[in-house]
Amino acid sequence: MDRRSAATQDEVRRHNLGSLLRLVHVHGATSRSDLTALTGLNRSTIKALTADLVQAGLVREAAPVGRGGAGAGRPSITVEPESERFYVLALDVGVEHLTAVRVGLGGVVLDRTDLGQSLGDYDVARTLGRLDALAGAMFAGAPPYAVCVGIGVGVCGVVSSDDGAVRFAPNLGWVDVPLRELLAERLGTSLQIDVGNDGDLGAMAEHRRGAGVGLSDMVYISGEVGIGGGFILEGRPMRGSGGYGGEIGHMSIDPRGRLCRCGRRGCWETEVGDQAVLLATGAPAGMTLAGVLEAYAAGERWPQAGMRRVGRSLGVGVANLVNVFNPELILFGGVSRHIFTATEPLVREALGGALAAPREHVRLELPGLGDDSIAVGAAELAFAPLLDDPLGALARLAPALQKAGA
Amino acid sequence: MDRRSAATQDEVRRHNLGSLLRLVHVHGATSRSDLTALTGLNRSTIKALTADLVQAGLVREAAPVGRGGAGAGRPSITVEPESERFYVLALDVGVEHLTAVRVGLGGVVLDRTDLGQSLGDYDVARTLGRLDALAGAMFAGAPPYAVCVGIGVGVCGVVSSDDGAVRFAPNLGWVDVPLRELLAERLGTSLQIDVGNDGDLGAMAEHRRGAGVGLSDMVYISGEVGIGGGFILEGRPMRGSGGYGGEIGHMSIDPRGRLCRCGRRGCWETEVGDQAVLLATGAPAGMTLAGVLEAYAAGERWPQAGMRRVGRSLGVGVANLVNVFNPELILFGGVSRHIFTATEPLVREALGGALAAPREHVRLELPGLGDDSIAVGAAELAFAPLLDDPLGALARLAPALQKAGA
Repeated sequence: MDRRSAATQDEVRRHNLGSLLRLVHVHGATSRSDLTALTGLNRSTIKALTADLVQAGLVREAAPVGRGGAGAGRPSITVEPESERFYVLALDVGVEHLTAVRVGLGGVVLDRTDLGQSLGDYDVARTLGRLDALAGAMFAGAPPYAVCVGIGVGVCGVVSSDDGAVRFAPNLGWVDVPLRELLAERLGTSLQIDVGNDGDLGAMAEHRRGAGVGLSDMVYISGEVGIGGGFILEGRPMRGSGGYGGEIGHMSIDPRGRLCRCGRRGCWETEVGDQAVLLATGAPAGMTLAGVLEAYAAGERWPQAGMRRVGRSLGVGVANLVNVFNPELILFGGVSRHIFTATEPLVREALGGALAAPREHVRLELPGLGDDSIAVGAAELAFAPLLDDPLGALARLAPALQKAGA
Repeated sequence: MDRRSAATQDEVRRHNLGSLLRLVHVHGATSRSDLTALTGLNRSTIKALTADLVQAGLVREAAPVGRGGAGAGRPSITVEPESERFYVLALDVGVEHLTAVRVGLGGVVLDRTDLGQSLGDYDVARTLGRLDALAGAMFAGAPPYAVCVGIGVGVCGVVSSDDGAVRFAPNLGWVDVPLRELLAERLGTSLQIDVGNDGDLGAMAEHRRGAGVGLSDMVYISGEVGIGGGFILEGRPMRGSGGYGGEIGHMSIDPRGRLCRCGRRGCWETEVGDQAVLLATGAPAGMTLAGVLEAYAAGERWPQAGMRRVGRSLGVGVANLVNVFNPELILFGGVSRHIFTATEPLVREALGGALAAPREHVRLELPGLGDDSIAVGAAELAFAPLLDDPLGALARLAPALQKAGA
């Protein structure tokens, strides 16, 4: 039972405008008749709402091209997001890289830049300086009529979504870093900044725009040095009671395993991460993961046994996830992408140990958005306020809009 | 956006009647003014809906007792479920016991009976015979004016909720047993029979009526010989894409561990289940879990090292669940109840290895419904059709109602 009857006309309009913009943002160019069908609103309401969004500059209408033909009836006008005009800045703070992406309304990647991180150099002030430089490059590359509506950040750690603080990022060595606050100060911006866990954002992006579209239950494995994870369960993100859920890298799978950064032994990430590969194969000093995988693929002898062990461990953890979550899809992002690609037969063999019923349901794949899953997820986070209340969000951005000549 | 505007008057009434009956079922005696507040419907609608439910015999109205007093205004009439009049039969098919419970509308346990199972004797036909006898005892004990509205069954295995078949119950040795169909035939009943996984049902019951009321994220650990689990995430049950989620007993935590019934090594249930205790402690032949726990509690020397190992393994799995799910509460049902009680300090010590952020959020407790969590959950399953459409469900039960003199 609900109390929607008590909602004011204003609330209804705000809700409907948001729903319409969200549909166009997620689906891209959509015909008015499809919008009518998808929302359950009538044609005249859709027309009026679209006019409001056009007036605000958020969408444009266009005559459909090449859809005519006998019996097709009057072609329906399409509504498209103004991707070049409204964008967000998305940042992905990883262990081996910092990435900045400019993402337009509609989820279009407009521009991107990358910076390799030296392992071990995660001083917070220096990291903020690098992010500032990357953000500056993205802002500078935007056309003068474009407006940034928000900033989203993905971090490989446990994040408190309330205050955008990083509670614990063992692979960065960060504990209780108030990232939202520090970043706002460093960038000198009043734009809203939202911070999320990399795995959660990767899962959300792949579910909305990547390999998991339309699925009910899926897992996205993230992480470069460590292993993290994001979950979509019955179509919704799993967060846990405090927003700290999904730390699958710290599922212990071997009581005699290597000591993990978290203090336990045999965590999944100590068995299958970047360092695990180097240690398990006895790689020569200075060699990177890529070097080991190359030698393994070339059939060199020294990495064979170690890589097989890592591949099996990857599969053991995957089988655990299959038994516990019964997902339709597991996506290998971050470093797990490379390890899965190299050892796929071993991973599948170990998956064979999972219970038959959930095993029959699962597909193992690579992310549909390639290396951009997390940044695209961070962008979705940053677009959320605009999609919740388009005109309210624009009112808050009035100075920036004026500057851009709106 | 919704299309509720398109709902017919009949649909609205059915929905409202169901919501009202569900509230009274979950909360017990509830005042009309609380029902008004909880549903958002107005007083006259509540009055009319209540009259319909009274007429159907599902609830009764009563003047409140001892609630008067200055300033309290006119006392509101309370609405109470007719618990003696409408009941369900709930069956719990475990490894060490079969339990039948007669549960009245409102979740009141009216009658119960138990039958110990010999380990290893799970022949399907014999089990059906025993369930038939238990069900007969429950039906025979019901007063002549009482009507059974459905049957719910909890089973320690992977269940397909669509057809009520048990896909895989390793500890019973059952594979693809069409339990709903076989039970309907054996009981000679046309009553609806719903079958669920024991862990899922335990979690649901504890969340609705036990230790987890009002929580967002919780885990219920089930199982007598093996270990199963049920999850409530953001207030809703986790099922997995095929309904097979929650098999936490088959999370492997030790690659060199004992061989599990499922074929893998070191599954959590091989390290902390009933058999694990007997093997780890080297218990004398014929001794039961209770005997080992007694000797351990009495400080006898032989079970100490083994029990400590089992307690730590229980804690390792719990820490994994905390890292992956970030729940507010973990409840130790089934055999884990006894092992947790015996080794609580060791479990808590191992929990100390979980990440700080989710660890700070979690409580470890025993189930609020004692040994009845699963049966109460099965009863909730059986009440669902009545709560979804009270008058429609009664119409389908017309012959039984006539016989009971309604």
